[in-house]
Amino acid sequence: MKTHPRFISFEGIDFSGKTTQLNIVREKLDTIGRPTHLVREPGGTVISEKLRPIILDKAHAEMHATTEILLYSAARSQLVHQEIWPMLERGDYVIADRFYDSTTAYQGAGRQLDIDFVARLNRFATSGLTPGRTIFIDISPEESVRRRKLAGRGRDRLESESIAFYHSIREAYLTLCRDNPDRFVVIPGEDSIEDIAVQVWEQIVSFWSL
Amino acid sequence: MKTHPRFISFEGIDFSGKTTQLNIVREKLDTIGRPTHLVREPGGTVISEKLRPIILDKAHAEMHATTEILLYSAARSQLVHQEIWPMLERGDYVIADRFYDSTTAYQGAGRQLDIDFVARLNRFATSGLTPGRTIFIDISPEESVRRRKLAGRGRDRLESESIAFYHSIREAYLTLCRDNPDRFVVIPGEDSIEDIAVQVWEQIVSFWSL
Repeated sequence: MKTHPRFISFEGIDFSGKTTQLNIVREKLDTIGRPTHLVREPGGTVISEKLRPIILDKAHAEMHATTEILLYSAARSQLVHQEIWPMLERGDYVIADRFYDSTTAYQGAGRQLDIDFVARLNRFATSGLTPGRTIFIDISPEESVRRRKLAGRGRDRLESESIAFYHSIREAYLTLCRDNPDRFVVIPGEDSIEDIAVQVWEQIVSFWSL
Repeated sequence: MKTHPRFISFEGIDFSGKTTQLNIVREKLDTIGRPTHLVREPGGTVISEKLRPIILDKAHAEMHATTEILLYSAARSQLVHQEIWPMLERGDYVIADRFYDSTTAYQGAGRQLDIDFVARLNRFATSGLTPGRTIFIDISPEESVRRRKLAGRGRDRLESESIAFYHSIREAYLTLCRDNPDRFVVIPGEDSIEDIAVQVWEQIVSFWSL
């Protein structure tokens, strides 16, 4: 694995507030004059953005679990090789809204695929790129469902999964946190947006010595 | 691996005449009242057909080798799980215009990816499904280029590769033939269409005891 100090990822189950926090982080980084590339999955390149609607389309209920993980990995592969590696190589900072831990949790644990193969696939798709720090915003599956209802918006294909599916994903994330204590930071995601933002920012300031 | 006696694949480098032969085979099978499903890669399902133009689009010159193999594997995964396995399970016969040997040859050898990982990926994407017989129609890379020029049509992304690329693919196919003598049949592809058709048909009649 090639752990990179200028690369941070954010993880969490759906409706954890990850993207809200990333927008706050982006503003703060702009304010202090430390421009940082924010990338999201699946997407971020011409090819990956074409894959995004295929992956998320709720009409694709027939998508097999192995197809799903291969498509997420393909979208990530293109993003990593076309964008993230070149950004890091020219000295830039990068934050990813989801990275391969999402695949380990959602496809590996959620779809009950061979964990050893999933790990190899993750390394293959990224050429071993690993975030220096991963911020996991932790909410319960019940809170995720409550927020989804509040949001009232149509769900995509993955957001339509059962609460048991989300329990297995959260457990997988917590296992990743335990197994990679030097990389993962867990931030409770049921506090106020402002309180969470303070904790997220402390982590970034500390890790990047801002 | 799960080798299936009702499943045959056709392989060859571009312009080997594979698809022409498959059309002749289809007519003959119809004539003798042995309907057979013909599937092509990448494609054959709603999801896989959406991936096909992304994979083949010549404008996608930036596609990374790891993205490419993951997309081919995703398209195949969906075709296998949604169509081929169910067809075989209900007793039908299936012929595939390319299967995972194409990935071993084009992406593994052509793009110089880790052969061991490519083999694992092939098994993962197909849940181990292996053709009972694979008919490899063999032409030289030079003949492929000659036919491409004669055809005069626009080339897709892969057909635009160099002659060295096609040499490595043909070598990979010939290695597969040597390593899997019980599965592979090599048919010289530079004879007349009629002569090749006779040899192809003999193979199918013999393998399926028609």
